[in-house]
Amino acid sequence: MTTPHESQLPPSDGQQRRPSRESATPVPDDRPPDAVADVVVVGGGGGGLPTALFSRWLGNEVVLLEKAGELGGTARKAAFWYWVPNNEPMRAAGLVDEEADFLRYVARLARPTAYDPDSPTLGLSQWEHDMCRAIYASASPAAELLAQKGALEYRHCADVPDYWSELPEDKAPKGRVLVPRGARESMSDGGVVAVESMSAAARRDGVDVRTGHRVQRLVVADGAVVGVEATTADGRTHRIAARKAVVFATGGFTHDADLRRNFLHAPVYGGCAAATNEGDFLAIAGPVGAQPRNMNYAWMCPVPLERAVAGDPGMIGMFSVAGDSTIFVDKTGRRVVNEKLQYNELAQEFFRWDGEKGEYPHLVLIQIWDQRSQDFSASDEYGRLIVPPGTDDAHVIRGDTLEALADAVAERLARYRGVTGGLTLAPDFASTLRGSIERFNALAERGVDEDFHRGEKAVQLLFNGGVREEPGRTNPTMWPISGTGPYYAALVTGGTLDTKGGPRANPDGQVLDDSGTPVPGLYGVGNCVASASGQAYWAGGATLGPILALAHRAAQAADREPVREPATQLTPA
Amino acid sequence: MTTPHESQLPPSDGQQRRPSRESATPVPDDRPPDAVADVVVVGGGGGGLPTALFSRWLGNEVVLLEKAGELGGTARKAAFWYWVPNNEPMRAAGLVDEEADFLRYVARLARPTAYDPDSPTLGLSQWEHDMCRAIYASASPAAELLAQKGALEYRHCADVPDYWSELPEDKAPKGRVLVPRGARESMSDGGVVAVESMSAAARRDGVDVRTGHRVQRLVVADGAVVGVEATTADGRTHRIAARKAVVFATGGFTHDADLRRNFLHAPVYGGCAAATNEGDFLAIAGPVGAQPRNMNYAWMCPVPLERAVAGDPGMIGMFSVAGDSTIFVDKTGRRVVNEKLQYNELAQEFFRWDGEKGEYPHLVLIQIWDQRSQDFSASDEYGRLIVPPGTDDAHVIRGDTLEALADAVAERLARYRGVTGGLTLAPDFASTLRGSIERFNALAERGVDEDFHRGEKAVQLLFNGGVREEPGRTNPTMWPISGTGPYYAALVTGGTLDTKGGPRANPDGQVLDDSGTPVPGLYGVGNCVASASGQAYWAGGATLGPILALAHRAAQAADREPVREPATQLTPA
Repeated sequence: MTTPHESQLPPSDGQQRRPSRESATPVPDDRPPDAVADVVVVGGGGGGLPTALFSRWLGNEVVLLEKAGELGGTARKAAFWYWVPNNEPMRAAGLVDEEADFLRYVARLARPTAYDPDSPTLGLSQWEHDMCRAIYASASPAAELLAQKGALEYRHCADVPDYWSELPEDKAPKGRVLVPRGARESMSDGGVVAVESMSAAARRDGVDVRTGHRVQRLVVADGAVVGVEATTADGRTHRIAARKAVVFATGGFTHDADLRRNFLHAPVYGGCAAATNEGDFLAIAGPVGAQPRNMNYAWMCPVPLERAVAGDPGMIGMFSVAGDSTIFVDKTGRRVVNEKLQYNELAQEFFRWDGEKGEYPHLVLIQIWDQRSQDFSASDEYGRLIVPPGTDDAHVIRGDTLEALADAVAERLARYRGVTGGLTLAPDFASTLRGSIERFNALAERGVDEDFHRGEKAVQLLFNGGVREEPGRTNPTMWPISGTGPYYAALVTGGTLDTKGGPRANPDGQVLDDSGTPVPGLYGVGNCVASASGQAYWAGGATLGPILALAHRAAQAADREPVREPATQLTPA
Repeated sequence: MTTPHESQLPPSDGQQRRPSRESATPVPDDRPPDAVADVVVVGGGGGGLPTALFSRWLGNEVVLLEKAGELGGTARKAAFWYWVPNNEPMRAAGLVDEEADFLRYVARLARPTAYDPDSPTLGLSQWEHDMCRAIYASASPAAELLAQKGALEYRHCADVPDYWSELPEDKAPKGRVLVPRGARESMSDGGVVAVESMSAAARRDGVDVRTGHRVQRLVVADGAVVGVEATTADGRTHRIAARKAVVFATGGFTHDADLRRNFLHAPVYGGCAAATNEGDFLAIAGPVGAQPRNMNYAWMCPVPLERAVAGDPGMIGMFSVAGDSTIFVDKTGRRVVNEKLQYNELAQEFFRWDGEKGEYPHLVLIQIWDQRSQDFSASDEYGRLIVPPGTDDAHVIRGDTLEALADAVAERLARYRGVTGGLTLAPDFASTLRGSIERFNALAERGVDEDFHRGEKAVQLLFNGGVREEPGRTNPTMWPISGTGPYYAALVTGGTLDTKGGPRANPDGQVLDDSGTPVPGLYGVGNCVASASGQAYWAGGATLGPILALAHRAAQAADREPVREPATQLTPA
């Protein structure tokens, strides 16, 4: 069976074919390397590919080491929107996006309890403030350079709003999003397009790409990082020397259950990052004094419970909960949330703690829909759970009546009791659900969600997905759920797109030690290092836009590093 | 003015009198040490004092280095309950507390979404399961040994319940708590008593105690930790060699704002740990491969906003919200929580995220009380905010009417706008508050809190504090709030008692590297290392009971270490 997910999947890249993790203890520069480059980039996704290209275009010899069997990382699975403040098309269109306004918007959301418009850093730490300024300064130059070089051409999404466009701090509520030019109209395949075009540019321009190489540890000399050791599936260890710098861009720790459990602010089951995102950089960078930061937050989204529990590498986050005649209910059958809340915020709702009962009562919510939404809102894009005929619908639960649906949901949930703290449906789930539907239907007829404010914000309309047209309707996110079956359901929980924490690097990508001093030769870019976004998901593409900015800066700083020749010479081939 | 807090304060120990933090990069064993011991213990609080004693009683020469001017750490401020499963008095009384039952209880609460009674580790990680078994095995022997040696005698609290005593997994709901024998009846001074008696035993038995020593970094030889370097306020650096082991017991990171912000699951302002708890061990242990775990959770409690913001080192957490005619309301004037919820769970309520508005609407709650509670529930213990005349009441806001009170609260909150994300009272706060009081009063008259279930659990009655007797009342946690003033209010937020994360150590206290291998010579005990409790606060004393257990085990394992003589000899004095 062909699934919608497979088309967005990196070719099967099972753990068994990748080298396993070894000790991360650094090794001295005591033997000839197997290869030498000016800059060694570790990771070939949305952070590593642009870093390699920027470095190469500055005249450096570049080796790119990728753990998976092919390039792309999480970016390949993404829509690859990139959020670029004060971008060229905005300027051309006369849209004003000043730095001071941008900083207020990002600070307000990154650290909401600390935000202070009268503070010199707006309540951010000095480091966070410096990083946000770097994003503002460098995102547009990075995007323009990638476009000029033909590595990543874009089109401007003039009408796509920021996720908090209604906030008074957002003075440029639309226009910061770019997408790969070749992406389809719905933009969901932007990642495939971007990875292919950046990979082609890397081949064209002479980046030495080595897939199937898992970097295990640093090579260190006189306190400087002068290379790495990587292992391959054949059991060999390859030492790659870096004359100037090693730049890690290895992604977050979404797929390391132990790290997730011990760092994230919510007990998620996993997420839709590339399966190779196992937090390798944390153990690798620790011994040289790296200081992890922003370890508690993640880029979050709802995910289908069953795929998350299964660790399905093809899982896509639910970036858009499509449909109008559909609701989420909890295990008691009550509606408890605005289902159209922007995905990062919707994901938080699953982790509301009940300090009386000692449980997460919303850990699993149940999406319910009727034949109307099935007929008019099915889609294989953006992780939607209402899928068209012929696609993988193993997650879909069916019932001709609400009672039959409830029985089927209870049966499905029972399979997951061992991983949900024994979560079961309330005995009167079906009758409560009926009441919840009646209430929702009354609200939908008026088009006003007095309970949860569904459809009241621009971003909620943006992600509403396809719905049956209803002339004159004021709120396209709502329509009464049918009084007759068939009915459908699916189990939903919160997950990560990827995590946001890792060693702290400065605005030039230099990894900092406990004294705030750069570790010579060691750089980091992307989700493997600390994001200055705190808890915020500022906008679509707030992952990749800043990553491109910081990749550009890291490549420039690495280019300026003094050359450190390996202590012993390359062995002749 | 004498404050109730000062009596529980370590003598003024301002940061200016402590050495500041320096680089944590380890140094080689390349010069003669200034002192040598078998075991060097770092930190002289609830973890370090027992570790030093246990080590000394095994015949080791022990040096104890404490950063502050005197011993005690956070323990000095605590009631020093210690939770000891299957303790001697329980056994003597025939109270059954079997290991399998204990493990189910702790697992159910540590990882509620993963708890699975059918799993061999009950849903815990193998490490967590091993640690919990170690706590069960060693807490009682540790407590008995301390008592036998006269270092910490106890009395048994046969009637104190666990914090989740109603859970079906709690098969020994009462009897696990011990307190220092000499503590007053209310037990609030247990920490002073315990610190004094353990300190006296340390002096008596020849532990070499050195206060005012801030350990900055490890001394490393051939991959083993063989000592530390500490600095003193006079600017000198002291190298202390350890023939067998260095045991860190330096507390959590409550007082490092950057670490709090970047690790904890909630944006707390601070907490009531000793002011010296700045997370020093994280940077110190990183370079030898230590792996931080359980960094997201903390031992939490409500705290008075104003003292937390001021970083008042004498602040005591609100372990007991005393009073019956008192409620908490939010900035709109609505009652939003069970005010008698056990403190760790009550603290979570301040950090409910509103994903529509992008704010923490309960970040600051306002405790409201009347003259009845002022007259009958005032206390200077357990961090209560209703304090007796003559004590420091700078946090108390007054009004003769609810309207006057609302104005005064608004004025007070305005002082904190810069650190609360601009939190202000709703314009109709006073009228909403009046409605909230009417509703609460109706519930109080019936003694049943239909809204938030106040007073329905044993632990809520335990911490109710003193209230005016009302014959025949079924729910002593509630009484109608007076229709006439004066009224009182105070600002409350959530904070930490201390944090729970740090390098992962095994059940013998050995710090583990990224391969799970002990770092030779390096141990950790207490809040400076990862707690296996996950998100749970199992019971009163669930901090110190496990700490004593693990201190006992660490001392035994350290005693078995091979002797490593310093590479160069001690300089003659």
